[in-house]
Amino acid sequence: MSQPPNSPSKSHGRLSIGASLQPRDLMADRPDLHGVWTAKVVTLFPQVFPGVLGASLTGRALDQGLWRLDPIDLRLFGEGRHRNVDDTPAGGGPGMVLRADVMGAALDHTMRGRPDDRARWPLIYLSPRGRPFDQAMARRLSRTEGVTLICGRFEGLDQRVIDHYGIEEVSLGDFVLTGGEIAAQAVLDATVRLRPNILGNEASTEEESFSAGLLEHPHYTRPATWRGHDIPPVLLSGHHGEIAKWRQAQAEAITRARRPDLWAAYDRSRDED
Amino acid sequence: MSQPPNSPSKSHGRLSIGASLQPRDLMADRPDLHGVWTAKVVTLFPQVFPGVLGASLTGRALDQGLWRLDPIDLRLFGEGRHRNVDDTPAGGGPGMVLRADVMGAALDHTMRGRPDDRARWPLIYLSPRGRPFDQAMARRLSRTEGVTLICGRFEGLDQRVIDHYGIEEVSLGDFVLTGGEIAAQAVLDATVRLRPNILGNEASTEEESFSAGLLEHPHYTRPATWRGHDIPPVLLSGHHGEIAKWRQAQAEAITRARRPDLWAAYDRSRDED
Repeated sequence: MSQPPNSPSKSHGRLSIGASLQPRDLMADRPDLHGVWTAKVVTLFPQVFPGVLGASLTGRALDQGLWRLDPIDLRLFGEGRHRNVDDTPAGGGPGMVLRADVMGAALDHTMRGRPDDRARWPLIYLSPRGRPFDQAMARRLSRTEGVTLICGRFEGLDQRVIDHYGIEEVSLGDFVLTGGEIAAQAVLDATVRLRPNILGNEASTEEESFSAGLLEHPHYTRPATWRGHDIPPVLLSGHHGEIAKWRQAQAEAITRARRPDLWAAYDRSRDED
Repeated sequence: MSQPPNSPSKSHGRLSIGASLQPRDLMADRPDLHGVWTAKVVTLFPQVFPGVLGASLTGRALDQGLWRLDPIDLRLFGEGRHRNVDDTPAGGGPGMVLRADVMGAALDHTMRGRPDDRARWPLIYLSPRGRPFDQAMARRLSRTEGVTLICGRFEGLDQRVIDHYGIEEVSLGDFVLTGGEIAAQAVLDATVRLRPNILGNEASTEEESFSAGLLEHPHYTRPATWRGHDIPPVLLSGHHGEIAKWRQAQAEAITRARRPDLWAAYDRSRDED
């Protein structure tokens, strides 16, 4: 494949974010860390990464080298003096479409040296047309060697790129975002926290609850009385069996009331046991 | 309500983000802009805002004062010398729960002077137990005067706060995030782009498509041939009627194949017309 005029080399994992929203040091050459789970994100806004992922557990893990984040600036692969990345839709209509040749060049660059096996290294385009992202997908992604995420903007990506590379389309939900960057951060947050040594002792009952197919039971903590509202007495009883039973009943009741779809699936799987 | 020792005043809408992830100027006193749609976000990580929302269309609109973003630092309402915000779950179990008294103080501060009518100013807690966020909810939020979003962390929020304030629980999807911050940014991005004067001429067929209940048809743009793949000839035919028919058929086929749930709803609504 021919290189764009300003062939970018690998960007590095931890970007600092400036108030000016200027990309920094995207051209810096860093070797890949072997064996470290890596997210490559093709985006027109590399400067918004790591964003939320730079805080809290995911940010600490990024600093510790437990995972790696490489934003790839799509603009560097743009054509001509203005580095155009998009053009008007064939057949007319509003908005702009990301060009196949520009995205193709960016993907060839990004996937070089990565496994061709999409099970080992998924190639995902974040789009409302995709399969809805869920906890099972987060678990699948957390067991790969890494993932490449493509952030759309404008009307979307030329369909030929999606077909040519066998790109998996994944949707965050039934709503329209300005671009794929927030969706990419959600996918990475849900995935990275399932990697080994990230959550540490902060084991989550939410994850356990989702794995069981139920919404989570309610939580309470001190003070025992707040503005006249008491913690349910069973939780202060010390009877572990009763507490577990109460929580299970609450989780089932909440799931049944709020999410008949999840409840039906849970009910079926229970019958099969 | 009693004020916390270091009673914070209103934070201002546009935060600069530093690489150090230190909150800046959260105590600065700025008057609310009258009539400007405002998002207040209660979070332990105010420094991750505006994040992605500071880029692109939403960022330009923020700079132009077309909407306002006020992160509220929950830590400022913490108790004691260490400003504790959480405690162990009543009844035992892993993780920590956000305290009712701390969140209550933060909410009293945040909601002061806002309409009590939740239809005018929704109060939303982002949680996987909530009602799934969708385009209809984005449209509803875009027609309010503003919204307050609560970002969870750890195991979640003391249930008594949710009950006491009549908080609406909203879920981004069936996956577990480290915290509510990314979900809040997704909700705000989807909502703000529907506000007047934000999208401008960049009218989106995706939004139209979602409103019709279908996934979007594929897009193509120049070059006409890319790596041996041609743009479907009908799109280059100039026959607007044929193009519209092709796109509608594609949108229906993709929706039927990928999202039987959306297809069933679409099919029903079509029968009713």
